[in-house]
Amino acid sequence: MRAGPSQEEIRRHNLGTLLRYIHLHGPTSRTVLADRLGLNRSTIMALTAELTGAGLVREKLPSETGRAGRPSLVVRPESTRFYVLAFDVGVDRLAAARVGLGGVILDRREAVRERNGFDLDEVVATLAGFARQMLRKADADTVCVGAGAAFCGVVRRGDGLVRFGPNIGQTEVPFGAALTRELDLGMTVSVANDANLGALAEHQRGIGTRCQDLIYLHGDVGIGGGIIVGGRLLGGEGGYGGEVGHMVVNPRGRACGCGSAGCLEAEVGERALLSAAGREMSEDLIGRDAIRAIVDAAERGDVLARDALHRVGDWLGFGVSNLVNIFNPEMVIFGGILREIYLSSAAQVRSRLKTNTMAAAREGLRLRTSDLGDDATLVGAAELAFTEVLTNPLEVLTRAVAAG
Amino acid sequence: MRAGPSQEEIRRHNLGTLLRYIHLHGPTSRTVLADRLGLNRSTIMALTAELTGAGLVREKLPSETGRAGRPSLVVRPESTRFYVLAFDVGVDRLAAARVGLGGVILDRREAVRERNGFDLDEVVATLAGFARQMLRKADADTVCVGAGAAFCGVVRRGDGLVRFGPNIGQTEVPFGAALTRELDLGMTVSVANDANLGALAEHQRGIGTRCQDLIYLHGDVGIGGGIIVGGRLLGGEGGYGGEVGHMVVNPRGRACGCGSAGCLEAEVGERALLSAAGREMSEDLIGRDAIRAIVDAAERGDVLARDALHRVGDWLGFGVSNLVNIFNPEMVIFGGILREIYLSSAAQVRSRLKTNTMAAAREGLRLRTSDLGDDATLVGAAELAFTEVLTNPLEVLTRAVAAG
Repeated sequence: MRAGPSQEEIRRHNLGTLLRYIHLHGPTSRTVLADRLGLNRSTIMALTAELTGAGLVREKLPSETGRAGRPSLVVRPESTRFYVLAFDVGVDRLAAARVGLGGVILDRREAVRERNGFDLDEVVATLAGFARQMLRKADADTVCVGAGAAFCGVVRRGDGLVRFGPNIGQTEVPFGAALTRELDLGMTVSVANDANLGALAEHQRGIGTRCQDLIYLHGDVGIGGGIIVGGRLLGGEGGYGGEVGHMVVNPRGRACGCGSAGCLEAEVGERALLSAAGREMSEDLIGRDAIRAIVDAAERGDVLARDALHRVGDWLGFGVSNLVNIFNPEMVIFGGILREIYLSSAAQVRSRLKTNTMAAAREGLRLRTSDLGDDATLVGAAELAFTEVLTNPLEVLTRAVAAG
Repeated sequence: MRAGPSQEEIRRHNLGTLLRYIHLHGPTSRTVLADRLGLNRSTIMALTAELTGAGLVREKLPSETGRAGRPSLVVRPESTRFYVLAFDVGVDRLAAARVGLGGVILDRREAVRERNGFDLDEVVATLAGFARQMLRKADADTVCVGAGAAFCGVVRRGDGLVRFGPNIGQTEVPFGAALTRELDLGMTVSVANDANLGALAEHQRGIGTRCQDLIYLHGDVGIGGGIIVGGRLLGGEGGYGGEVGHMVVNPRGRACGCGSAGCLEAEVGERALLSAAGREMSEDLIGRDAIRAIVDAAERGDVLARDALHRVGDWLGFGVSNLVNIFNPEMVIFGGILREIYLSSAAQVRSRLKTNTMAAAREGLRLRTSDLGDDATLVGAAELAFTEVLTNPLEVLTRAVAAG
């Protein structure tokens, strides 16, 4: 319970708030900024002057105005000059991007990851290699202001230790420390669970920007979840919150990689769908391709494929219903392979919602598929990386320039 | 996204923060206040002078000090002068209290509620009658600064409409409006779900005061839930969040009063336990008495009673495990009749937690029984009623004095 802030704290807060607004909403006139941030024009002028001085934003006359009188200057983020590095470690894919202030993807790299085993050194070397390639291509006067990574596992807040990755068969992987060391940029790489970052991305830049309460469900091999409560990401005591994939929906259900049985992940994930559709896991057809093959077969009239999707959709409906009763969210977003699964079994999901949730809890609910698609987790990693500079623009900048 | 506050907003915020601190922590020296609120002593002096002037707090020399030098004045809440009215509508009980600033219960009334049906006029008349009795007993110079009520149903934020009360067989009951009208105090009665308010109470005054992430499970005839995420009560889009009692734990389970089947409430509530123990619902033995009779029987060696408790505890374990994976809470608190049920089946609950949750999600977890007992929901209603005066002390006071 802290009292109100000092004048200096307010100034810093306002600088961060203005920069965050421009970062999320793009070029904005001073007049609109004054209105949205609830500050008078002279304060906006002073703040933009500071940010312009630091090179973080630029002010320009709008290209045309429909009104008489002096037009309001437009403040734009210096997207090509200040950037973060974002990384994403999925079960089947490694990705990295250089993302400019304002959320512009300036450069990106991707590689397929083989499912057999997990070699930390190899993963870190690949990601760091991507980063070095992208850094070499960046202009000399550009500045890296942060680094963030999404990981398909349960990640400890603070040091990016991956406590548990059931779908890569790993525990206690010091991923954050290893990537920080290998990059050697003079800054720590922030790491978080991929589905948590997907939720953050959809909330800040995707389909959920107007929602203060949303649930993002991410289907990879497993099912991850990220939950925004009252506009903030649900973290829990140690940062492990949001693991909705390990909610038991079927106490007599299939064994799960987490050691339990009947988890949402075990009933709805890739393995469950392939098995219900009578298909083997094969090296040639995994992930989204395997799911699409089943969806295509169902559309062509394959009864086994159709029944498999309905069966899986029914369990997905149980899971979503529980979450709707618990969270009363405005939106549930299906991402990763859950997009395809949900689109092919929406009737089952909606039917379960009608039976299993209280009318009040679902009346404001919208079910949607991810806007950002496969990039949701990577975009979330970039937003995580931007957190510090948007909280404390000038200090972070001073540090970054000194380190660069 | 708002910018930092104005000087006037800061002053108001600081007044509220100081009063809230005293309200929750009791008499506190100026020195400690300065430290805890991060303000200098002259600001604390100015703020306490304003609150003293309004009569909300009083400053006194401490009775003894162990140190040399001028002792720091102790600021205490004017508990007998400023109070709220708190109400609690449970399935089996109606309660009301007059609660002073600082959380002191100054007066209280209770009545048994019969289970057959629900007559809004009768309930409101009983509660308003209690209120009038307590108001008559209050001194002439005392001031009512708010009113709040807990209700065993799904309550709409804003107007206190009870959307759904499965255990009283009601929908769309305009309880908040009716009680506000009947009391006629010139102020609106704030209403919320009883388990939500139980969570708030345990977080602010009970066993969960040091937890920022906790889950309170309230057993009445049904199972309610209240969840604190990052220090704030989870409300959801319409204020209906926290309905963990209607999470389906057993898809092949017993019919639930909500229309679904296999809900936590249907597998763990009073009816489930009585039925598992082969006992009939009887008018003579309901609620806590009925549960205690089963617990006593189990302790005396009644195998049927013991097995019933274990069976119910196992389902409770499924529910708690799901919540632990989803929220990674620091604490789960069992209140109402769930105290007895949990204490008699803790082994089953812990065993399920071990099987069904990820190690990381449960490693900081403590399972506890409610500190506030049967008063948790009523205390929560009082805290709800205090919300406004603690946000905006002087304005609310001016209004209350004018209305009184």
